[in-house]
Amino acid sequence: MLLDIALAFAADPQHLVQDLPGQPAVGFRHYAGQIQINATADRSLFYWFYEADHPNASSLPLVLWLNGGPGCSSIGAGALEEIGPFRVNATGTGLFLNPYSWNKDLAANFIFLEVPYNTGFSFTNLLSDDGFWTDNQTAVDSLLFLIEFLSKFSEYKQNEFYIAGESFAGHFIPTLASKIIGHNQQGDNPIKFKGFAIGNPSTDDLYDVPGNRETLFAHAVISEELYEGEKLYCNKPNATEEESMKCSNISLQIFILQLQVSPYNLYSVPTCNPCLDAVTNYLNLPEVQAALHVQTRPVRWTRCKSYLPIDKQRSMLPVYRDLFEHNLRIWIYSGDVDSVVSTLSTRRWLKALNLSVVTSWYGWGYPGEGIAYLGGRAEVYDSLTFASVRGAGHQVPRDKPGEALFLFKHFIAGTQLPPANDLLLVNRL
Amino acid sequence: MLLDIALAFAADPQHLVQDLPGQPAVGFRHYAGQIQINATADRSLFYWFYEADHPNASSLPLVLWLNGGPGCSSIGAGALEEIGPFRVNATGTGLFLNPYSWNKDLAANFIFLEVPYNTGFSFTNLLSDDGFWTDNQTAVDSLLFLIEFLSKFSEYKQNEFYIAGESFAGHFIPTLASKIIGHNQQGDNPIKFKGFAIGNPSTDDLYDVPGNRETLFAHAVISEELYEGEKLYCNKPNATEEESMKCSNISLQIFILQLQVSPYNLYSVPTCNPCLDAVTNYLNLPEVQAALHVQTRPVRWTRCKSYLPIDKQRSMLPVYRDLFEHNLRIWIYSGDVDSVVSTLSTRRWLKALNLSVVTSWYGWGYPGEGIAYLGGRAEVYDSLTFASVRGAGHQVPRDKPGEALFLFKHFIAGTQLPPANDLLLVNRL
Repeated sequence: MLLDIALAFAADPQHLVQDLPGQPAVGFRHYAGQIQINATADRSLFYWFYEADHPNASSLPLVLWLNGGPGCSSIGAGALEEIGPFRVNATGTGLFLNPYSWNKDLAANFIFLEVPYNTGFSFTNLLSDDGFWTDNQTAVDSLLFLIEFLSKFSEYKQNEFYIAGESFAGHFIPTLASKIIGHNQQGDNPIKFKGFAIGNPSTDDLYDVPGNRETLFAHAVISEELYEGEKLYCNKPNATEEESMKCSNISLQIFILQLQVSPYNLYSVPTCNPCLDAVTNYLNLPEVQAALHVQTRPVRWTRCKSYLPIDKQRSMLPVYRDLFEHNLRIWIYSGDVDSVVSTLSTRRWLKALNLSVVTSWYGWGYPGEGIAYLGGRAEVYDSLTFASVRGAGHQVPRDKPGEALFLFKHFIAGTQLPPANDLLLVNRL
Repeated sequence: MLLDIALAFAADPQHLVQDLPGQPAVGFRHYAGQIQINATADRSLFYWFYEADHPNASSLPLVLWLNGGPGCSSIGAGALEEIGPFRVNATGTGLFLNPYSWNKDLAANFIFLEVPYNTGFSFTNLLSDDGFWTDNQTAVDSLLFLIEFLSKFSEYKQNEFYIAGESFAGHFIPTLASKIIGHNQQGDNPIKFKGFAIGNPSTDDLYDVPGNRETLFAHAVISEELYEGEKLYCNKPNATEEESMKCSNISLQIFILQLQVSPYNLYSVPTCNPCLDAVTNYLNLPEVQAALHVQTRPVRWTRCKSYLPIDKQRSMLPVYRDLFEHNLRIWIYSGDVDSVVSTLSTRRWLKALNLSVVTSWYGWGYPGEGIAYLGGRAEVYDSLTFASVRGAGHQVPRDKPGEALFLFKHFIAGTQLPPANDLLLVNRL
């Protein structure tokens, strides 16, 4: 009896979000606030935690979601525009329900964490922290956060734990995965870490950068002349002045051609001009910040902040090779009309890992709404699953919410995406 | 006065389309029927001619539109699904107006011609004609049709004349252009031929086929293994039995992966399953065939018929090189999400032509409806203009009607597509 009461109050009641402006009624609890992970620096990471919309929430998987940048907010992008239960309305003053919310349909619990420090509502008061940042520091901080979170929300300690995210989280997530494995090997309180999934992950510039250029060329953004010219003049260690000038001119032209389209979704079409950034508006309402327990107010929330990414060029491939030893479930997915971290880039580093193919390249089927169609393609390796998402850009759950949820359900269940052949497909001519 | 009366009746009154079932009222005349071009074979080509929706129709340009296949109907695709004034309703029983009709907004007169013989409502009664066909035969027939048409509709004899079309019309149009030039050099009654525009044109298998494979690879349809494997095993003149088997297996896998998507628009999404082919239904209504003056009834109209394309592999590049001598306006456009005749394929044969660049690769802007955005990219050469259309598949005017009309207006006006930089563009993140 006493134990029941203790459990019932284990979730930090001070962080319970109540009276969030414009929020529709929901059948689950959510929490937000800062958790201090370094007292000297007064370094505190902001999180927003949505319990599963399910009667047995505390027995269901726990998923940590991280956005990229580095320095882009997980609550602005991940929670409010991608997989969370709430969407901000057009005027940026209220919320409505996301029909594809992962905490409902997937029936899992989601933590959205803002890293590195100073991203979104996370903060540090140590001057030397400002603008100084490494993958390792972010992973150390994230692990400290996680330990503290599981202490506060101790009813989730025994739950299966996964990490998910996108873009520069391609650095954060594998690095954090290594740290968690190290933590589990050393200490008490192991985290029941099962695996991770990352979309359009920044992984290794050696493959990501040429894949970006090849994608821009193959999707008619840049000319063959610019594509070949950049290869010829822009990667020379001992370039002459003429070659450097040619490279500068080519780079400028490529930059301009990219500016004319969203490089994050090559086929997106603008729907407003200029657009009100509704999420920025909403998260800067004082009453919203108060409801989310943002400590130091007034705080100006911004979607992304700039960091000096000291080890941005670090390759993740050695990290993956180490992780493969630990029997994790690893899924890499990729919106196939993104040019920033393109599907081509990802396929190229996957090839460099020289994995054993279990199920070779196939079209996977998405049952859709009333009509089945091709969701993308997948290849299953011994230690990793790759899946592309057809027609999605950099932020897969934003562009293709149904397909993304379907894909992630299979990730959590540990089942292969169904082949498109098994579904009724239409070959439109 | 006598002359006026003669002109007023020059257009064949017997082919005037009246009481077309389910047709909305329009302010222009249209004509349809078969024109015999070979009495021995009783070979007759079917056309549907829409005058411009404009008070001065007979002084405005005359455009011949040809679809591809070979053997696909110009009235089914071109007229009723792409650029014509009418669209067939969902039940295939009536028509509604196309808001992007080229005979209205472009203010030109359009002939949709069904070639080769036996395509759509065209026919031949000579047994040896059946299944026997060459580019040259189609061009000869088309020229005979055109001479006869201009004799029937003599008020259009002095109008500027253009040809437009897509796909396998990449063979028909340059070949017909050569024939018209030959006709003009020899005889009386020259045709005021000014130029042509072709979308996603089948041109030279040496570039079109590898471009197709590269597009399938770069758009995540096929794996790198299949892409490289086909290059390795499928193009060997003296292949061993093992290599032939590997090639067969690879080809089958590529075929299956393509079947799961529309190869004509890699990002299209099915909207009905199964779909009623409304156009086929409509064109097979006996009262519709009667109104269109289809002679031999009952006729079963089919969208595409198969031909033995004796010279399908013929390269058009020598034809283009000859045409460049004749000061024609030539535009090649390309929907950039088609894999069948891909933008990559077209760019590769354009490069092989070694043209002089007048305006190098740039994004062109489409004013859109209330918001400007990127329509595609263009490059202007001394003897030809290339333009891609962003997000369009094989049939550009069907997928991107606004952009296609905007592009074609510039072709007819002989003006360059405006650079996107001059328009307000949104870079959506």
